[in-house]
Amino acid sequence: MPNISEKGQAMPASPIRKLVPYAEEAKRKGRKIYHLNIGQPDIATPEIALKAVRENTLKVIEYSHSAGNESYRKGLAKYYQSVGIDITHADIIVTTGGSEAITISFMSCLNPGDEVITPEPFYANYNGFAVSTGVKIVPITASIADGFALPSISAFEKLITPKTKGILICNPNNPTGYLYSREELEHLAEVVKKHDLYLFSDEVYREFCYDGQTHFSAMNLKGLEQNVVLMDSVSKRYSMCGVRVGAIISRNCDVMKTAMKFAQARLCPPSYGQIAAEAALNTPKEYFEGVYNEYIERRNYMVEALNRMEGVVCPKPKGAFYTVVKLPVDDTDRFAQWLLEEFEYKNQTVMLAPASGFYATQGLGKNEARIAYVLKIEDLKNAMEVLEKALLQYPGRKL
Amino acid sequence: MPNISEKGQAMPASPIRKLVPYAEEAKRKGRKIYHLNIGQPDIATPEIALKAVRENTLKVIEYSHSAGNESYRKGLAKYYQSVGIDITHADIIVTTGGSEAITISFMSCLNPGDEVITPEPFYANYNGFAVSTGVKIVPITASIADGFALPSISAFEKLITPKTKGILICNPNNPTGYLYSREELEHLAEVVKKHDLYLFSDEVYREFCYDGQTHFSAMNLKGLEQNVVLMDSVSKRYSMCGVRVGAIISRNCDVMKTAMKFAQARLCPPSYGQIAAEAALNTPKEYFEGVYNEYIERRNYMVEALNRMEGVVCPKPKGAFYTVVKLPVDDTDRFAQWLLEEFEYKNQTVMLAPASGFYATQGLGKNEARIAYVLKIEDLKNAMEVLEKALLQYPGRKL
Repeated sequence: MPNISEKGQAMPASPIRKLVPYAEEAKRKGRKIYHLNIGQPDIATPEIALKAVRENTLKVIEYSHSAGNESYRKGLAKYYQSVGIDITHADIIVTTGGSEAITISFMSCLNPGDEVITPEPFYANYNGFAVSTGVKIVPITASIADGFALPSISAFEKLITPKTKGILICNPNNPTGYLYSREELEHLAEVVKKHDLYLFSDEVYREFCYDGQTHFSAMNLKGLEQNVVLMDSVSKRYSMCGVRVGAIISRNCDVMKTAMKFAQARLCPPSYGQIAAEAALNTPKEYFEGVYNEYIERRNYMVEALNRMEGVVCPKPKGAFYTVVKLPVDDTDRFAQWLLEEFEYKNQTVMLAPASGFYATQGLGKNEARIAYVLKIEDLKNAMEVLEKALLQYPGRKL
Repeated sequence: MPNISEKGQAMPASPIRKLVPYAEEAKRKGRKIYHLNIGQPDIATPEIALKAVRENTLKVIEYSHSAGNESYRKGLAKYYQSVGIDITHADIIVTTGGSEAITISFMSCLNPGDEVITPEPFYANYNGFAVSTGVKIVPITASIADGFALPSISAFEKLITPKTKGILICNPNNPTGYLYSREELEHLAEVVKKHDLYLFSDEVYREFCYDGQTHFSAMNLKGLEQNVVLMDSVSKRYSMCGVRVGAIISRNCDVMKTAMKFAQARLCPPSYGQIAAEAALNTPKEYFEGVYNEYIERRNYMVEALNRMEGVVCPKPKGAFYTVVKLPVDDTDRFAQWLLEEFEYKNQTVMLAPASGFYATQGLGKNEARIAYVLKIEDLKNAMEVLEKALLQYPGRKL
């Protein structure tokens, strides 16, 4: 029997994966589980997008252009212009979700062994994309004490080696919900320019900025036109994670020409998804207002409820729909398993994402968890009540 | 400005790519182009699949399971059983098209630098997937003289080195249309077993077998249960290339467990595509009979028309919807360009895929082209007439 690959062995399993059997067992027992662990919003996809797919009249579902349908790319360019990012459709390649945008960007820009610095905690699948492309993720630790703000520029400088080829940021951030300010990004830009790096900017939560804050895109950093690669997705913007439509955007023609060769090899992004995404460009403003109000209510409720619990520290995130919270427990991996395996309150429990999966530095995040506020407010209220009871009852409680 | 990657530089452009500007120019001149160069069938997608998407009632387009919807995988397992491949849904991971099935299979099984032997001419995008995964494609040349039959086992043996980790076949074959027999595959199985290799079997044209021939799947090779990785797609079977739904199938649990980690990192295959693919499992038999009759008529007409032309040699393919044909020209790359740039007959011309792009060995295929019979019979008739006139008029004619 032939061996599996080294990459395959190194490939991390999803950090939630090990909890799944316990969740399944809990469900079998008839327990209600509140899923605070996933980034799958319960928000409805805009009706205009659903309708476009239902009313499509295609007779042959053909390959689309490898860069995505031209009409969609033109519409998408207008969308970016409307949010202050001045590009044309020639600067866009439509991808199969944000996932493929990251993989193709990495393959186009980076050699195996090259290092990319990214603030931790970070989106766990970056590890997977790094393994599959042979890239080394170098973590720079952000601290819950200052709400996971961008680490200092001198801290970045210390990590730069001859192998450093890029910096990767997720803004607003998954998992912390932190929104990087224009000022922070301008400081970062100096490092990028000084060392002639790529700046990979994952901005899939662009629409989710709260408290009057506005999003500043890395695409608008002056003098970085050849360095910035924007990686985007419609998954969160329109709550349609399953359509698998994302995009790579860059003004660097060499990067785009190279990315296009990878895009051609895999033929094209999904046709139906592109129909939904193109129609979604005309989503009425009221939709976003409704979504915004919903998330603000959820966030405010949740942050307050969490901080009321003894020993819990929860920063108030200004973006996305996650927060990384400090819990009064010995080990959130153990706590998350215990919640599913042993705990129940009125036959309910909650599922959390232990933060250890979002840190690359061994041992960090042991008393932190990512909580997504993707549940309806009534469910969120129940979930917070359950969590509070659980924290009091957990044998590994540690204040 | 940071450099692009070495992989990006090595990544081949699509072999048709260089012809595209000439085709666009010809179109601008108002010329009718018959596209014999692409594998995009004009056959309608089964109505049952189109209808399922039109009538879907989803309100939130959520992530699906990373391995694909369970209901689809269960249906797909029944489909495989119906074609004599005895597997269960646990042996299936649904992918984003056959393209991703190949990439994930390679990443799961092979290390950078590992060698995979494949008969040439071969599907040009294998080169792209090999570059992106760091795998080395080692070509073994098949000959038009025997209709591109499987090269001898001793020829395979000669190419095996300590780096050889797999053999890759496409059956029925793109680009040659050759259908490997059970006997040929059983010979191949001995080499695979002897050297403990993977056998990657791309069977996306399974349904397209003519002249009473039946398809023998590599999954049914005795004693190779741990070696065979089947890479499949619904693109051609149901003429829905744009849905981007494929699959990896293997009885090797280590391979499947590893592939699943790559599948989780990219989250899931497209939701709408899975709706279409699941519904397509109930495509009525008459659909396939109609498609079969259509392709048989096209193939027979085309092969006969081509062989009637002086200096043209066209094997009669028993599968898929392509043939690689020998043309009486100095260089099919030049000829294909000339067809678009300089030739016209009644304001029409044809576009061919020069075979050089399907060979890895330098210099091979210079007087061969791949022709796809994906056009309606009237269009095919016109195309053959145009091609015949062109061959007589081409300055580089060489009998």
